[in-house]
Amino acid sequence: MPGVSATATSRLQRARAMIGQTGTDGLLISSPATKRWLSGFVLEQGEEHHSGYSGTLLLAAEAAVILVDARYVEVAADECPGWEVRRTNGAIGAELSALAAEHGISTLAAEAAAMPHADWSAVEAAGLRLDAADDAIKTLRVVKDTDEVAAIGRAGALTDACFAHLMEWLRPGLTELQVAWEIESWFRTNGAEALSFQPLVLAGPRGSMPHGHSSDVTVAGGAPLLIDFGCQVDGYRSDMTRTVSFGEPSATFRERYGAVRGAQQAAFEAARPGMPGSDLDTVARDFLADAGLGETFSHGLGHGIGLDTHEAPMLLDWHAPLEAGMVFTLEPGVYFAGEMGIRIEDDVHLTDDGAVRLTDAPRELLVL
Amino acid sequence: MPGVSATATSRLQRARAMIGQTGTDGLLISSPATKRWLSGFVLEQGEEHHSGYSGTLLLAAEAAVILVDARYVEVAADECPGWEVRRTNGAIGAELSALAAEHGISTLAAEAAAMPHADWSAVEAAGLRLDAADDAIKTLRVVKDTDEVAAIGRAGALTDACFAHLMEWLRPGLTELQVAWEIESWFRTNGAEALSFQPLVLAGPRGSMPHGHSSDVTVAGGAPLLIDFGCQVDGYRSDMTRTVSFGEPSATFRERYGAVRGAQQAAFEAARPGMPGSDLDTVARDFLADAGLGETFSHGLGHGIGLDTHEAPMLLDWHAPLEAGMVFTLEPGVYFAGEMGIRIEDDVHLTDDGAVRLTDAPRELLVL
Repeated sequence: MPGVSATATSRLQRARAMIGQTGTDGLLISSPATKRWLSGFVLEQGEEHHSGYSGTLLLAAEAAVILVDARYVEVAADECPGWEVRRTNGAIGAELSALAAEHGISTLAAEAAAMPHADWSAVEAAGLRLDAADDAIKTLRVVKDTDEVAAIGRAGALTDACFAHLMEWLRPGLTELQVAWEIESWFRTNGAEALSFQPLVLAGPRGSMPHGHSSDVTVAGGAPLLIDFGCQVDGYRSDMTRTVSFGEPSATFRERYGAVRGAQQAAFEAARPGMPGSDLDTVARDFLADAGLGETFSHGLGHGIGLDTHEAPMLLDWHAPLEAGMVFTLEPGVYFAGEMGIRIEDDVHLTDDGAVRLTDAPRELLVL
Repeated sequence: MPGVSATATSRLQRARAMIGQTGTDGLLISSPATKRWLSGFVLEQGEEHHSGYSGTLLLAAEAAVILVDARYVEVAADECPGWEVRRTNGAIGAELSALAAEHGISTLAAEAAAMPHADWSAVEAAGLRLDAADDAIKTLRVVKDTDEVAAIGRAGALTDACFAHLMEWLRPGLTELQVAWEIESWFRTNGAEALSFQPLVLAGPRGSMPHGHSSDVTVAGGAPLLIDFGCQVDGYRSDMTRTVSFGEPSATFRERYGAVRGAQQAAFEAARPGMPGSDLDTVARDFLADAGLGETFSHGLGHGIGLDTHEAPMLLDWHAPLEAGMVFTLEPGVYFAGEMGIRIEDDVHLTDDGAVRLTDAPRELLVL
């Protein structure tokens, strides 16, 4: 069995220090990313929905227990040094209350947004009190350590390389889904263990749907092509968007593109620890408003990224100061229904000296 | 906008007929597969965790409403004919209680295992009563119609073809992950829209972990290789397992393999409508017990399959009669820690005349 790393120890300390602040006797961790961050436990992809509460962590001053179903007992013993592995039979109420009784625990801080209501009510029916502490638990992972930033950086570098490949490979006549599959297969055969999400490849006016599905629409000449994609390396994610032009862009496209690029650059240059995330959102929003495009920027400036593609801090709603070590996206976009969508997105690492890009493919308007 | 199909109408009728049985005023549907089954709404892959409650359905005698976030408004209007599309801003409590008030609804049957506790408690805090009705709602999808069986059959046929390809392609020296990627890329370039789950490719003694991850362990000669895989076609899934031998199998392997194959065939031949699912499980279990392998069959005989890889009926715990139209797996397995695992799994469609295989790759012991 491998020993417990310094990183794992420091994360456990950080989590235990939080218990006191929540006014409970311990933490109950249910979200896959936080399970992994704290214990190293990795659910098989797609297992979230039928593995019951496998990998759930109970952490108290004197206890660090991981509960897994029979299929994961061997794996958890291997991958989670320092954690006591308990096999569950799915009866979360009875099992957790017995475990809590062993450790003198009567209340737990838990993730109400990650825990199904059926599990939550079974635990409470068994006499244990749960307090929703989602926001507090989210902050555990919000500042990344050096290894985490490096892993996101590896995912980002691979994303840049994939984009360079696409710029060579793309040609008119392909469908959006063919481009999406090229991205996926390139990533998987060049070192990524998974995608961050299914690539969004949106041709021409379809780019106006911020989260449309890739389809069998053909990528035609003389139109914008929006590509939003990312990959996973060692559990960590990247997320990048570029909008390119197939054929000579119209003056309108060029002008709007310049405004989006300017808004992203302004936010990139303004980012500093101590600044509220919502203020950074305002920098990009004001820039686009000054260009007469304020109404068309219909979503937030960016989101944290790490073991999840979307995690804290959500910049638009993050009124607390940003901190050195946070990693988030900067992705202003403008959308014109039935006409076009333009978005430029990079992942950045906030340092004491400002933001550092972890994705860095060309941002000038590329004409293919 | 496309019209409402006969299938969609019949599903709506089935769901509305259930409302009376639950003693509530309507249904609230939160699970992605049931959202799709009832309305046609498809979340982008991987969206389950950050799309809030997008695609949630509220169905009552006079109402059929789909609630989606801004990103899905265009898509839902397109893909969900017959449903009133409402845009949500994520405030599930206020939004649902306002909608319920419009339709005179005060209680809803809901899916407690699919709904996060945070959402459930927000709805109740807004004055609407929710009753957990997971089992009743699951039964809506448990009997498949002809189109659904045909779609699972297409996924199954593609899985058989993928296995035939692997039997040509496999050679010693590959890693488990390389084999898993070959399966994925073959599926994706031969008509599957996605995998049912990440393929489990487990070499030699690693096959003893019923749900181990594929790794960079090399597939060596002279050992069993267990492959558990499936794909998605038109939303519907397949799930098949074969265990093959690299090089001449030992007498022990051969004997155990024969017992697993016999157990699966016995269950296949015994399956009839009217028989409790748990009795069918017992058929395979008794067969293996008679072969002295009863203790090594550490999981249930099979699970329903359709829009989800794992859905009702879970045979081991299904004490109600099986019905014609159900589709489920038959997957006896025996596991010897540190030594080997053997599992044979097919998807079958239950008809009045018995089970029909929807996956049907060779089940004799293949020696590569």
